[in-house]
Amino acid sequence: MTQTLIKVDLKQPATQNEQIHNRWHPDIPMACWVSPGDDFVLETYDWTGGAIGNNDSADDVRDLDLTIVHYLSGPVGVKGAQPGDLLVVDLLDLGAKEEVPWGFNGFFAKKNGGGFLTDEFPMAQKSIWDFHGIYTTSRHIPGVRFAGQIHPGLIGCLPSHDLLKTWNKRELGLIATDPDRVPPLANPPVSRTAHMGKMKGEARDKAAAEAARTVPPREHGGNCDIKDLSKGSRIYFPVYVDGAGLSVGDLHFAQGDGEITFCGAIEMAGGWVHMRVELIKDGMSKYGIKNPVFKPGPLTPNYNDYLIFEGISVDSDGKQYYLDANVAYKQACLNAIEYLKKFGFSGAQGYSILGSAPVQGHFSGVVDIPNSCATLWLPTQIFEFDIRPNASGPVKYLDGSINMPISYD
Amino acid sequence: MTQTLIKVDLKQPATQNEQIHNRWHPDIPMACWVSPGDDFVLETYDWTGGAIGNNDSADDVRDLDLTIVHYLSGPVGVKGAQPGDLLVVDLLDLGAKEEVPWGFNGFFAKKNGGGFLTDEFPMAQKSIWDFHGIYTTSRHIPGVRFAGQIHPGLIGCLPSHDLLKTWNKRELGLIATDPDRVPPLANPPVSRTAHMGKMKGEARDKAAAEAARTVPPREHGGNCDIKDLSKGSRIYFPVYVDGAGLSVGDLHFAQGDGEITFCGAIEMAGGWVHMRVELIKDGMSKYGIKNPVFKPGPLTPNYNDYLIFEGISVDSDGKQYYLDANVAYKQACLNAIEYLKKFGFSGAQGYSILGSAPVQGHFSGVVDIPNSCATLWLPTQIFEFDIRPNASGPVKYLDGSINMPISYD
Amino acid sequence: MTQTLIKVDLKQPATQNEQIHNRWHPDIPMACWVSPGDDFVLETYDWTGGAIGNNDSADDVRDLDLTIVHYLSGPVGVKGAQPGDLLVVDLLDLGAKEEVPWGFNGFFAKKNGGGFLTDEFPMAQKSIWDFHGIYTTSRHIPGVRFAGQIHPGLIGCLPSHDLLKTWNKRELGLIATDPDRVPPLANPPVSRTAHMGKMKGEARDKAAAEAARTVPPREHGGNCDIKDLSKGSRIYFPVYVDGAGLSVGDLHFAQGDGEITFCGAIEMAGGWVHMRVELIKDGMSKYGIKNPVFKPGPLTPNYNDYLIFEGISVDSDGKQYYLDANVAYKQACLNAIEYLKKFGFSGAQGYSILGSAPVQGHFSGVVDIPNSCATLWLPTQIFEFDIRPNASGPVKYLDGSINMPISYD
Amino acid sequence: MTQTLIKVDLKQPATQNEQIHNRWHPDIPMACWVSPGDDFVLETYDWTGGAIGNNDSADDVRDLDLTIVHYLSGPVGVKGAQPGDLLVVDLLDLGAKEEVPWGFNGFFAKKNGGGFLTDEFPMAQKSIWDFHGIYTTSRHIPGVRFAGQIHPGLIGCLPSHDLLKTWNKRELGLIATDPDRVPPLANPPVSRTAHMGKMKGEARDKAAAEAARTVPPREHGGNCDIKDLSKGSRIYFPVYVDGAGLSVGDLHFAQGDGEITFCGAIEMAGGWVHMRVELIKDGMSKYGIKNPVFKPGPLTPNYNDYLIFEGISVDSDGKQYYLDANVAYKQACLNAIEYLKKFGFSGAQGYSILGSAPVQGHFSGVVDIPNSCATLWLPTQIFEFDIRPNASGPVKYLDGSINMPISYD
Repeated sequence: MTQTLIKVDLKQPATQNEQIHNRWHPDIPMACWVSPGDDFVLETYDWTGGAIGNNDSADDVRDLDLTIVHYLSGPVGVKGAQPGDLLVVDLLDLGAKEEVPWGFNGFFAKKNGGGFLTDEFPMAQKSIWDFHGIYTTSRHIPGVRFAGQIHPGLIGCLPSHDLLKTWNKRELGLIATDPDRVPPLANPPVSRTAHMGKMKGEARDKAAAEAARTVPPREHGGNCDIKDLSKGSRIYFPVYVDGAGLSVGDLHFAQGDGEITFCGAIEMAGGWVHMRVELIKDGMSKYGIKNPVFKPGPLTPNYNDYLIFEGISVDSDGKQYYLDANVAYKQACLNAIEYLKKFGFSGAQGYSILGSAPVQGHFSGVVDIPNSCATLWLPTQIFEFDIRPNASGPVKYLDGSINMPISYD
Repeated sequence: MTQTLIKVDLKQPATQNEQIHNRWHPDIPMACWVSPGDDFVLETYDWTGGAIGNNDSADDVRDLDLTIVHYLSGPVGVKGAQPGDLLVVDLLDLGAKEEVPWGFNGFFAKKNGGGFLTDEFPMAQKSIWDFHGIYTTSRHIPGVRFAGQIHPGLIGCLPSHDLLKTWNKRELGLIATDPDRVPPLANPPVSRTAHMGKMKGEARDKAAAEAARTVPPREHGGNCDIKDLSKGSRIYFPVYVDGAGLSVGDLHFAQGDGEITFCGAIEMAGGWVHMRVELIKDGMSKYGIKNPVFKPGPLTPNYNDYLIFEGISVDSDGKQYYLDANVAYKQACLNAIEYLKKFGFSGAQGYSILGSAPVQGHFSGVVDIPNSCATLWLPTQIFEFDIRPNASGPVKYLDGSINMPISYD
Repeated sequence: MTQTLIKVDLKQPATQNEQIHNRWHPDIPMACWVSPGDDFVLETYDWTGGAIGNNDSADDVRDLDLTIVHYLSGPVGVKGAQPGDLLVVDLLDLGAKEEVPWGFNGFFAKKNGGGFLTDEFPMAQKSIWDFHGIYTTSRHIPGVRFAGQIHPGLIGCLPSHDLLKTWNKRELGLIATDPDRVPPLANPPVSRTAHMGKMKGEARDKAAAEAARTVPPREHGGNCDIKDLSKGSRIYFPVYVDGAGLSVGDLHFAQGDGEITFCGAIEMAGGWVHMRVELIKDGMSKYGIKNPVFKPGPLTPNYNDYLIFEGISVDSDGKQYYLDANVAYKQACLNAIEYLKKFGFSGAQGYSILGSAPVQGHFSGVVDIPNSCATLWLPTQIFEFDIRPNASGPVKYLDGSINMPISYD
Repeated sequence: MTQTLIKVDLKQPATQNEQIHNRWHPDIPMACWVSPGDDFVLETYDWTGGAIGNNDSADDVRDLDLTIVHYLSGPVGVKGAQPGDLLVVDLLDLGAKEEVPWGFNGFFAKKNGGGFLTDEFPMAQKSIWDFHGIYTTSRHIPGVRFAGQIHPGLIGCLPSHDLLKTWNKRELGLIATDPDRVPPLANPPVSRTAHMGKMKGEARDKAAAEAARTVPPREHGGNCDIKDLSKGSRIYFPVYVDGAGLSVGDLHFAQGDGEITFCGAIEMAGGWVHMRVELIKDGMSKYGIKNPVFKPGPLTPNYNDYLIFEGISVDSDGKQYYLDANVAYKQACLNAIEYLKKFGFSGAQGYSILGSAPVQGHFSGVVDIPNSCATLWLPTQIFEFDIRPNASGPVKYLDGSINMPISYD
């Protein structure tokens, strides 16, 4: 049996587990050590450390303190790893902790972080998804059932001191351009809620004051939210500190490209990752690697009948943007939601499906001035009824009696 | 045998063919008429009307007058089509004209339109791709061979007068914010090179002065450059004028998501489209359709072993952007090109591969402030050698003796 | 443009075209020569040389003289090919001759060759399939539409004199065990209808008297009827004579595993193959090759939602067989046909679908005495209605008013 | 958490667990009851009840008493199920028991059951496969690593008294045609080693004397050994007795089509199945169902680069068979093994790979007298080196120093 190097007791606060941390800093002590060639299991909290409950209220989403995220398992030290190496990580398997076969998807209120479509959905909402073996369904969104594609939303190695300085400099610089913005342009270090693993006392306070928040993806990977980092994938991570310091968390049962709902994909209430590590010495320069590179695994859900929605970089008010892929993808999402409403889904349910199900988001055209074109690929086989267009028009399969909990500001 | 409704003689200038046009305007007369249920063939010029040759110089790319594009076949009138309907188009098959089994891919000079990576590749370059049945190779880029996925870069219906006004207003408005920019923010109407099909005299001049350029994708579809609109796909187009007025052109033998090289995908020197049309009466409101929706066909090349490159919205100079998916995708592309150089490809060859081969570009994270995360999926099976990472490092398979033609400004 | 080395005029009898032959013999002169690395096109007759018409009677199927088949294009001599080499053949593309966008599927009468289910369907029947670009439908079988997977039913190289002797010896030996059987156990040489290409006079007569019939697949490949030898596949053929002598014919637009209907798949009325050849010198011993080996192409129709039927080696009368995979597959086929009848298809229509559509037939269990288990994979996405089981039972979508022509003995 | 209705303690003999049985008989008492709509977990022994060890000797394979197999978990009674219904079973998930992350593959000696290629491999041999998350490797077969496709080799419902009589009659009839054959034509009832679940005393003895052995697949499904009955698949089983009586066992981590090695696939040392049941009342007649029908799940390993070997119904001695698909598939298997030997695998290793890895076996031609054509699809992506043919010939990657244990009679 494979050894579990980091255990998580979901009844214990994440902040009391010294093998957990929620900031990036080179001085966070290794939670455990392994050797190249080892395989091992790490258990994980959900990204909020248990703040979101399996219930029918969105109050917990509305009231979440975003400075506490993400609770990560690690860092795992890898013997012999040195700056400039590539850490090769095989995600051999991932799963839910047996006692919590469920996850959540939510939208933050616009005042508290928002999401990709926060202008259209400004209030906190939530859906709960139950896992039935490889499948999931939600009691808040009837008519949908699909296979999961479990992946870590967040995985990467510790930054060096230099890299950390670069991060802080550029992100604080961005914040400074509009410091009072709601939501903010970026998240500065916050010492109060920093959980620095085994670090205590002054050392902890010093590091916490400058430790990077975990929200954005960065050079080391981190919170990339890539749905295809699933079972069987192999990732090549840049190493910046001796021992590498690999951390992982924020497990998703499934997600659409973009994790557009922000809170988030189907966030697993508790999980585990079985992984194996190797090293490619001096791999960063050998392969010219700046950001992680990976190979997806062989077990992607094989849904292949898609309905594809286009969006261009003209917003809902008709405003013209210049080659703005974000606006284009937003429009593609809104187009898909409008379409789903014709079958009886509420807008919020449609939004939640796009954030949770294995939808693809593609850059389709990025050079045809002034309009970007983005496409959203909606798999039709996840629906329990036929959503494809036909001459007689859509059938309203759902009567709207079931909807997602909402909590007003 | 299916009837060919629009024939193209590649030796005749596109401007002399009255069933061809290069602008969008509601008053362009139908080139021919069909009924719902009909299937038929349209032949097509390449998007430049033959301006780019099968040779080893990039001068023609450098010197192209971009106001002449795109030469489209149509408009095809569909009996009974009315504004508000959906025109259902089956792309039953597409192919190269027998006499021109080749295509081109190029980068415009930064001074003349540029491309997605124009800062890194500011000079005009070109590669020629020969078709060998379903496969293609380039004499300018050794080591690569892949199956095509033929699709029209551009397809859509005529706009109404109102829609045309909307387009002109918003695009001219954008240009007005920085009218002297090189390259420009958008393309205004240009009467001189407008080819308005059968329109002549004053009517032509009036329409040409306000007719929309074909470069950007818009509500009607148009120049979406979606590689998955391939053999067997079914598209649902909004109809804005009586008879719909379907036009098509800019056939690509293959393309990577984004058509990042702009000039362009593998642009087919001449082609044909076999299609079938149907109507869904009042389909726009029935299904809540604003932009086209489509179902991809069943014959996508089944490459499935990918190496995936991540990019975040921090540019090559370290500048921090706020959730800018374009910057993130650009970084993912540059990361892939750096990687390919380790195997002996030149940067330009790498760029051309990303623009030509069936690579995917995904929105991976779009909400994790301040960094977007984009991924570029490079199929490893298109290379004639193994490009996957391993412990001993890359092998330089190519010696650089073959490269792409370049033409300096 | 690629050169067409063998042209076929469908109005000319196949027997008058000297680049066509319908027997295997080492002395058949090469129809043309190519060099390794060449690519070229061969046109083909249908396997019967035009004996089956695009009409609504099965009389031509009933009355077919089976000694005339298969009319093959070739043999193509490959310079430098020697016995023991492997001839590498790339099927770069295949298609229908423009003037005959249709094919046929039929059952021979039990008295005249029969088929896999000839006991259940003893009379001659036929269906005509029209090609619509990549898709096909039949006016005799409503409710079905699918993408083709064009492939040669028959392709291979000339046998040596020794190999030919081996064939004749073992097949005549088999016939001798039950010489009066109807249908026969195998097909002996028949000189009268032998078409030996350019051979004339005495030489022709001598060779025709011993030339092998083309019906069975043999060591050289030949009539393998493998649906996956489609666009883009690469085949490695054993070479037995100087020049190899590659011949091809019997093009199918689509076929189910087994070609159970015998007459046959969707037999293309006329077609062409674009291919390229290479040699692996001494490849047979290098790779231990006895029969051809191949790699399928990248453009297989991506139907992936299957309903799978099991069959075991107990026949419809309850008779027990010992590990007989044929009986098991027959039962799986019959089970699928019974199922399809619940939706309104006739038995003959069901049989024809299994012979024509991209169904898979798998050996599932071959060792669990005394029962073999075979599975038939029916893609549900080829039907225009939903054929998957549900609690309320099947809907009879078809009323039986349309059926396949039948011709009684 | 889902309830585990049948627990298995691998240290306890299977014969002492009353929720286990190894024969088919309508009177075996239900081990537990569920209702339609319930989901639940059943744990399983390996098919031999622990007789094969994780060691480097094949003695246990050589000495196995085949009358003891297969130890099944069940029968599970389903409330309301009646003869004529269809029992709908969702295989929601399957896995290895945590304490035994390994499985075995073996060949029985020809004297003790044999296998598909027992003439070529007449001695007992064994390979052990370790599971690493979704992947498996064997210390006895280097150079191979692939993702599993866990499935029950054996699953089905209890037969009725009538059906049992039919089975006994036809199988005993077959045995009677050659009663002394080694190996036997079929397996008669054997009371001594029959484990009848909760049945005791006289009732047990009476039933055991007539209870059907579990080796062959039959009308109810049973030992079908279909590799595609994997995670997420849905099966429709005929019901023959009140309560249905669903039993399952013989879990395989992976298998090639045919389970040619007989002992067997990669046989999991201990496993569990998470399933859900529903009923279609009177479904057998509604859908014309005789044998089970199923839909495969969405998580098949996506290996898609195949090398395909052909075989025809002429055996290794040149003997001609009449349309014998078994002989053809055997030849395809032998051809693949010969090929693999060129890369350094032993014949036994090649045989074991074909039995264990996700290879496909297709009926390719079944009507072209006298030769059947079968194809074996070998995925090239499971090998750690390149096994595709090229002009320079194969590289012998393995030196033969590692081989599979063998035990002589």
